Order: sequence, then C-alpha cells, then structure tokens
Amino acid sequence: MFQEIKIVRTTDPKAKPDPDNLGFGRFSTDHMFIMDYTEGKGWHDPRIVPYAPLKLDPATMVFHYGQAVFEGLKAYKTRNGDIYLFRPQKNIERLNYSNDRVCIPAVDPEFTLHAIKELVKVDADWIPEKEGTSLYIRPFIIATDPVLGVHVSKTYKFIIMLSPVGAYYKEGLNPTKIYVETKYVRAVRGGVGNVKVPGNYAASLKAQKEAEKIGYTQVLWLDGVERKYVEEVGTSNVFFKINGEIVTPELGESILAGITRDSCIQLLKKWNYKVTERKISIDEICEAYNAGTLEEAFATGTAAVISPIGELNYNGMKMIINDAKIGELSKRLYDTITGIQYGKLEDDMNWIVKVD
Amino acid sequence: MFQEIKIVRTTDPKAKPDPDNLGFGRFSTDHMFIMDYTEGKGWHDPRIVPYAPLKLDPATMVFHYGQAVFEGLKAYKTRNGDIYLFRPQKNIERLNYSNDRVCIPAVDPEFTLHAIKELVKVDADWIPEKEGTSLYIRPFIIATDPVLGVHVSKTYKFIIMLSPVGAYYKEGLNPTKIYVETKYVRAVRGGVGNVKVPGNYAASLKAQKEAEKIGYTQVLWLDGVERKYVEEVGTSNVFFKINGEIVTPELGESILAGITRDSCIQLLKKWNYKVTERKISIDEICEAYNAGTLEEAFATGTAAVISPIGELNYNGMKMIINDAKIGELSKRLYDTITGIQYGKLEDDMNWIVKVD
Repeated sequence: MFQEIKIVRTTDPKAKPDPDNLGFGRFSTDHMFIMDYTEGKGWHDPRIVPYAPLKLDPATMVFHYGQAVFEGLKAYKTRNGDIYLFRPQKNIERLNYSNDRVCIPAVDPEFTLHAIKELVKVDADWIPEKEGTSLYIRPFIIATDPVLGVHVSKTYKFIIMLSPVGAYYKEGLNPTKIYVETKYVRAVRGGVGNVKVPGNYAASLKAQKEAEKIGYTQVLWLDGVERKYVEEVGTSNVFFKINGEIVTPELGESILAGITRDSCIQLLKKWNYKVTERKISIDEICEAYNAGTLEEAFATGTAAVISPIGELNYNGMKMIINDAKIGELSKRLYDTITGIQYGKLEDDMNWIVKVD
Repeated sequence: MFQEIKIVRTTDPKAKPDPDNLGFGRFSTDHMFIMDYTEGKGWHDPRIVPYAPLKLDPATMVFHYGQAVFEGLKAYKTRNGDIYLFRPQKNIERLNYSNDRVCIPAVDPEFTLHAIKELVKVDADWIPEKEGTSLYIRPFIIATDPVLGVHVSKTYKFIIMLSPVGAYYKEGLNPTKIYVETKYVRAVRGGVGNVKVPGNYAASLKAQKEAEKIGYTQVLWLDGVERKYVEEVGTSNVFFKINGEIVTPELGESILAGITRDSCIQLLKKWNYKVTERKISIDEICEAYNAGTLEEAFATGTAAVISPIGELNYNGMKMIINDAKIGELSKRLYDTITGIQYGKLEDDMNWIVKVD
C-alpha cells in the first residue's frame, strides 16, 4: 500500500483560537506533514510532526529563485460530525501540473490524498464548527538546495499545514467593488499564470494595494497581450451573466483552472443555464452594462467560494451590477456548493471525499 | 551617522573551499548581515552574526506568495590587497526599485552600502585571490508574516550573505550556444520583468532545462506581446553588433536594467562606437545574419560579466556568429570591466568603491 507516515504527536498542544475571530490563515494547528525529496532517492521520509519552524540555510533556493508551488483546499465538519473534503483530487492534480511548470518532481496523487486525510485526522479537533468556518489545508513544496546559482533544485520539502478559518471576506457574501486594472498585468501566455506559484501572488500585490487605496476590494485583471480580455478577479476566477447567458473567460496559459470555477460550470449546466467559456472583452462588459443586459457578476475561489461583484470601475466608468445586491445565481451557487461541502445537501455530483 | 551594526563573530570558523573549485554560489562565508522590519518600527536591529540557518514559521509569506527581492554584486581583491566593490550604489538603487514593485519597504541606500562594506570586512579573508574569482554579495529581503491570507507583509528580513565564487560559466569566456525561446515567455509589460524578484527565475527554469536538453546553454527571450522582439538571454542583457553598430534592447517593463549592461553602454560610447538602445526583432537578427552583417553578439551580467554568443538557434535556423569565436568587442569589454574591477586598469569611470 502506501509508504508509512511516521506520526509524532505534540506533547504541548496549543489553545484553540476564538471561533468568532478566526480570520483567514492566521492560526496554525498542532501538526504538519513533511516529506523530503532528494535527487536519486525520490520523495521520502513522510511524517506528521508537531508544527514548528523550518530551519533553512539562507542560500535556500526558494528565497532567491522562488521555485515553489502550493495548493489550497478545505476540510468541513458536518452537523453529524463527519469530516468532508471537497474535490481534493483536483487540487492534487493541479499541484502536479504546477510542479511540472517549474520543474519540481511530481508527488504521488493517491499518497498525497492519504497524507492530507491522515493529517486532518490527527488535528480533527481543530476543525471549527460554526457556520461558514472550515479547516483550510495548504499543501506546498519549496526548493531547498542551498546554492545561489540559478538551477533546478535537487532537493525539496513538501509540507502540508492546516489553519482553522472563518469567512474569507469579512463582508461575507456581500458584493465587492472591483477595479479594472489597466496598468499592471498578472500573467501572459507562455508564462506561469495558469499554475499556483508564489511569484504570481507577489506580482499582484501592488495593483491590489493601489485598488484598496481608492476603495476597491480587488482588481479585475486584463490579458497581457491586448489588455482587453478579462482574465481573473484578484486571485479568483470570474463569471458574468449577460442577457441570460453565463460567460467566463476560457482557460489558457494565463488563467488558473479554478476548482470552484469548474464546480460552478458543472452546476450551471446541470441547472440548464447556457454557460460559455470564451474570450470576453472589457468592452463587451461595458456594452452589456449600457444595454442593461449585464445581470450579474461574481468571482469564484476556494477561500471565498462565491464573491458577488457589486461594482466594476473601468477607467472611471462605474458600473453598478444588480443594484450592488447579491444576485440570484451567486446565491444559488454559494448555497449549493457550501451545502454540499457541509453535508447539508446531497452530493449528487460525487464531489465529497469523506475522511475516516 | 549610521545606526550601529552589532557584530557577533563566529567562534567556529569554517575551512575555506578549494580556490580552484569554487563554482558559483556553493559556499557561504562565516558571517551574514541581518536587519528586521516591523510595521510602525521600520528597519531595526542591524547585526552581523555567524552564518546560520533561518528559523521560519511554515506559514511565512515568502514560501507561499513570494514577496521577496534580491541583488547580486561582487567584491574583488586587487594585487596589492585592496578590496573593491563595482558600482554598488546601482545595485542598492535597483534593490529599492524592486522593493517598490512588490510593496517591500525601502532600505536606506547609504546605510546598506555601509552594511555591505562592514560585512565584507568581517569576512575579508574569504575573498579568493585567483584570476577571475571574487566574493559574490547577495543582499535579499523576504516577507516574514506567518499568515496565509494574500496581503502585503508587515514584517521582513533583510539579509546579506557572501559566497566566494569562480567564473560563472565553466567554459569561461568561451562563446555559448543560445536557443531562441518561442514557447515560454519571461516577462510582459505591466509585469515584474524589470525587477529582481524570485518568481522571474522560477518561471524561467523550464525553458532553460529544455534548452539544455538539446545542447544549448541558455535561451534568448522574446517579448510577451508580439513574440518578436529580443529581450534578455537567460538572466542577462544582450547586445548585438550589426554592421558596425551596437544595438541592445531598450529598457522597458519587461527588461532588467543590468548594471553591466549600463557599464558596457558607457564604455562603448566612450570608445566612440555607435550604440543604440531600441527594439530589435529576431527577424532583424536573422536578416543581418543572412546579409553577413551580424558581427558579434554577447550577453552581459554581474555573474559572468560578458558572455559571447557563438550560436543562435531560431526555429531550427542555426546562426553561427563570428565563427563561434570570442569577438573583439566582447574581449575588449570583458578585459576593461574586469581590469577595472580587479584594479589592473585605471578607474576613469569612477565605478569603484574601495572597502576600507
């Protein structure tokens, strides 16, 4: 079967944080999973150990050349105490897709799922139970060669850490104000915008900060070539409902294949909506707005699930969408996905993996 | 004057590496400089301490979102024992330019130069003395907030480490074979290609690896928009001599403003060459090659100084430049810049900063 995961339990468990003030990613649980990679030896020595600082040589590659990948998914506790994961296989598949793009050796998908489950079981009492809270799972891999030449690392650490989280946006499902970014670019074809690597997030901070300064929650990114087609909102995918049709940017080398995005597409199709993945220009959005056919807009992601967009600002043109209220579709998608995640709705899509 | 730098000397100095087998960035010296940043408090607690692993929470921002910057420069020992830095103010200026792009607080330029000098003095006996060797200086800043939400960090560590290095390319000044990259893209306007952030290097690894697999040393990057204009070679700037004129890609948001690049431009102008910074398409290079006017090509960077290009492969068209021999200009620039760096030539450009 699987390589045995050695488990060393903490002798000094931490106090649990206040479930009403979890925030996002501020707290870590008592344990973490670690596995090492050495060229010639492969991934080895998987272990669950007390959560503790990493000791890394200052020359460690990840600090200098950013060779690293990560994922994000969640564990949910249902009313009858079951623990659910939501489509974890998709995250693991994407982890390996990201690995390939930045020359990190693949992990075994089934073993990785097993490792996630084992870690969640060890820290099961850290899964918060209040409405909307969950246990965020962060698998990540960092290159650890302590060498300053630019090269593909020969050693890595694969770590999985856990964090009890509240709702991602303090505002909850409240519609957000989004600024259409025309100066900075997130990604371009031929680049790394379609994988989860740290550099994408560092590159996005300035646009985010400047948007916040003028009262916006996030930016809407346009494509890097023509500066015309919408790509993502902040770190989420984006959907528009125009004249009854739901459109979302088609995947390409500059858009991350979100798992919530895919879940939304599947649900919408099941509900007999017309869903189209294609290029959407910001001009088309403006025209639809002016014609009164821009009915809804929302962002999708693991952290916030669905985030309705109440306002889009493009070069000073402020488009108020659906009276800045939560749209019917946003609400239905949010309720359905979270309903499945928390075991309140039947999982007829077969998305849930039970941890037992 | 400056904030006092506390110095704690090692009680356990390491053995020096073999000066004939230094490689690049494989060895660290006995000490490092560290300074911390905390929001509200600013940069504080500068110290030179024994080189040792960093202890970082697994949630530390740099692992996940890559908020970090770095620089690279060298210290040289002259024949009469003096220690020289080459245009260090330019590196510090660029460090702050990079900082601004990824929302890292600026460092004080004069204090940073002082810190570099103090560290080099503490580890002065680590500066190798053989021809072509030097002490590589790596200042870098990493975001250290232990929080998984995507945000601008409130805490940072600024570290300067040192590494005795040999020549960057094992082949020395021998001409390299360069593959013109048509699939992957390094950077795009609006992105971060003009700053020294880790993500740029992670994103370049795959193209580099694929080029090496088919016998090439590096790739020549084309622009991300039109896939037509040459930008950089690997992690270096690039120059072409076409029909007596020297051309190099003009700086923009996707090209790093190399300090060796700038030094070459200044020297070439001083030598009364016609030097032009402008867009150069790969088609223009091919046409010049076919017309017999592509006289020389070379890459410039801190690590290798000058790296002549002996072959360019564009979509299977192999262009052998200057009979794959070291060009006259490459040689003259290399000899002049290294001559100034090692104190063999008069520093009439005022580029040297003496450490004393």
